[in-house]
Amino acid sequence: MSIEETIREMAMAAKGAAKVVAGLKTNKKNEVLERVAQELVDGADTIKQENEKDLAYAREKGLSDAMIDRLTVSDAVIDSMANGLRDVIALPDPVGGVTGMWLRPNGLQVGRVRIPLGVIGMIYEARPNATIDAAGLCLKAGNAVILRGGSEALYSNTILARIIQRALREAGLPEGAAQVVPVRDRSAVNALLAQEDSVDLIIPRGGEGLIRFVVENSKIPVLKHYKGVCHVYVDEGADLDMAENISYNAKVQRPGVCNAMETLLVHEAVAESFLPQMAGRFTEAAVELRGCPKTCRIVPEAKQAADEDWPAEYLDLVLAVKVVSSMDEAIEHIARYGSAHTEAIVTSDYGRARRFLREVDASVVLVNASTRFNDGGELGLGAEIGISTSKLHAYGPMGLEELTTTKFVVFGDGQVRT
Amino acid sequence: MSIEETIREMAMAAKGAAKVVAGLKTNKKNEVLERVAQELVDGADTIKQENEKDLAYAREKGLSDAMIDRLTVSDAVIDSMANGLRDVIALPDPVGGVTGMWLRPNGLQVGRVRIPLGVIGMIYEARPNATIDAAGLCLKAGNAVILRGGSEALYSNTILARIIQRALREAGLPEGAAQVVPVRDRSAVNALLAQEDSVDLIIPRGGEGLIRFVVENSKIPVLKHYKGVCHVYVDEGADLDMAENISYNAKVQRPGVCNAMETLLVHEAVAESFLPQMAGRFTEAAVELRGCPKTCRIVPEAKQAADEDWPAEYLDLVLAVKVVSSMDEAIEHIARYGSAHTEAIVTSDYGRARRFLREVDASVVLVNASTRFNDGGELGLGAEIGISTSKLHAYGPMGLEELTTTKFVVFGDGQVRT
Repeated sequence: MSIEETIREMAMAAKGAAKVVAGLKTNKKNEVLERVAQELVDGADTIKQENEKDLAYAREKGLSDAMIDRLTVSDAVIDSMANGLRDVIALPDPVGGVTGMWLRPNGLQVGRVRIPLGVIGMIYEARPNATIDAAGLCLKAGNAVILRGGSEALYSNTILARIIQRALREAGLPEGAAQVVPVRDRSAVNALLAQEDSVDLIIPRGGEGLIRFVVENSKIPVLKHYKGVCHVYVDEGADLDMAENISYNAKVQRPGVCNAMETLLVHEAVAESFLPQMAGRFTEAAVELRGCPKTCRIVPEAKQAADEDWPAEYLDLVLAVKVVSSMDEAIEHIARYGSAHTEAIVTSDYGRARRFLREVDASVVLVNASTRFNDGGELGLGAEIGISTSKLHAYGPMGLEELTTTKFVVFGDGQVRT
Repeated sequence: MSIEETIREMAMAAKGAAKVVAGLKTNKKNEVLERVAQELVDGADTIKQENEKDLAYAREKGLSDAMIDRLTVSDAVIDSMANGLRDVIALPDPVGGVTGMWLRPNGLQVGRVRIPLGVIGMIYEARPNATIDAAGLCLKAGNAVILRGGSEALYSNTILARIIQRALREAGLPEGAAQVVPVRDRSAVNALLAQEDSVDLIIPRGGEGLIRFVVENSKIPVLKHYKGVCHVYVDEGADLDMAENISYNAKVQRPGVCNAMETLLVHEAVAESFLPQMAGRFTEAAVELRGCPKTCRIVPEAKQAADEDWPAEYLDLVLAVKVVSSMDEAIEHIARYGSAHTEAIVTSDYGRARRFLREVDASVVLVNASTRFNDGGELGLGAEIGISTSKLHAYGPMGLEELTTTKFVVFGDGQVRT
């Protein structure tokens, strides 16, 4: 069977299975997820054996240490996958929730009820834990899912899929509800993106190149973010200790992720009092600073920033720094170079806090808090399947509710239209 | 300037204007809409003169009476456009509405706030009233809009755009907030569909062929329905008088619209008592009946239905009729031939009403009410810009809220992530 035929069969199986999982009661879905959690722990040795094959292949291909780290499935990773599933079990089931109900003058009672989206195609990095996370969230929201992880994780993902499918089968449910693409070839991605008759949504995660490829080739709606060029703006009159803590956390706590700060904007009124000590802490943490001319005058250790620095997503211990002469300039800079992902202001001024929240267009806008909080778990969604900077359907972290839609239900007593 | 350049300039102007209208207070938006309403009535003679040019062209092209009827702008149509705007003025402004707010354990206060989508591209039939309706809804929801009505309505749409833009200008707002594509050439549509950097959403309305063309050629997200193959299912034990009224209304009240019934499904237990009288009423109303073999036995005047009748959207006084042996068969028939648009059951049974609402996948599912209620106004959304059978973002009639999205706002006191 060709890759195209394989993917087509998987998509058809997913479509059939989606109808079954859409109607499942919460208990049944939780039962399957608990079974998977248990079998992950019970099957740890087998999983690690399969993962070892992926690791050998990855080493042979010369993957970076960071990539090999993400690919590695240790006992700790297995425990965290199982615990992640139990967190999803504990979340309320979005399906069937009524988001509103009202009575019309003619007596019709109209409501909107949450229903699953259908079949979701996930395209992601070589991180086996994402396979379990995504499958758990999609199933809990009543969807079928087709998982295409990075090709280096094929053996790991295959054994994980087998565990999920066994749990589905033992619960009397179709295995098509959660499937892993069984080939390394990139053409499988193209084939998946062409299944617009059976796949309802594509969620790609990973590097910007992969995501652009997906968006350009998909006939199916895509929810994604290309990158996170996140700013912290330290306002005139900000609490400078707070500004330092937030800026440090936003840059240093985990520099390789999309909600890390990439550019620090500082109002000129506080630049001289704020930047030297801030720069000292960054330098201690081995952060390379690239500043505008004013920054470089105040912070001699900063290098001169080039034009490419302002739109850059470093994902590393590098930070662009700009002194701005007004809040207008900060907002304009963000509008020009930001990626609509996460933007924060540190301020003590009520009016400026309100203005920043209102005027800055980003999926998450924060006052006096680190950009690192743009995360489904941190914001209270329970968990997340990704972050969207597309405005349609979901803007920001996507949790269980974002994996559903609503339909209208109407209760009548014989009403007709006149 | 080429058509591509013209459209590109319009899209850039719309993007700039969108930032302005996104931040307008409700009063200001209402003021503009009221001014347009007034100028429509004051400028009635000029509008009708321009419309006369379109009508002459349409007659020359040999358009059908129905199409010429839709194209005609009479005093009554002008009044109804003005009243429609006043209805939109009376609707609550969705922008800035908080759809939820909660406190996190670390003290972060997290909320979701409605914001406009940005720039909306409308592609629709040669109906000048739609120009005003769409512009009113898009502006009220804080969006800029590019309007591409059917080419036969070019003169009418151009004068209407001039009226809207004068009102914008007099209020000190950019004319780019509402623009009409100034050329008849179809390539303008292709050019509009390529402006993915500045247009956020495309809403096409009209025939299935046009909509498929838009979906296939758009790089921008599209909300649409292809067609409405709507069913009424008359259940065993239904109130047959109610079933007759609902079925008659669903087919006959306005047969040319997407929420009219196209197929009637009747449980075999009531077919003999229900169908003869129902068929009599349909025949009186000149409805042509195309039935399954059982239907034809009970209703001699029905023609034999062919395979093409079950998925057909007649948009006319023609009805397919099928006798089913169970509710399962009805639900399967709907899943197979329905278009996820509007589906209704007539029943007296509590459990079957619940089951139909749960299992039938359509944007609007009704119990004991006519399919004709799938309409934003009728369901209480105030007005609608279209009906979506896409599940992403909006499923069903789209009102003001569906022309917005939400962003997360976070109020902190110095929180960082640990």
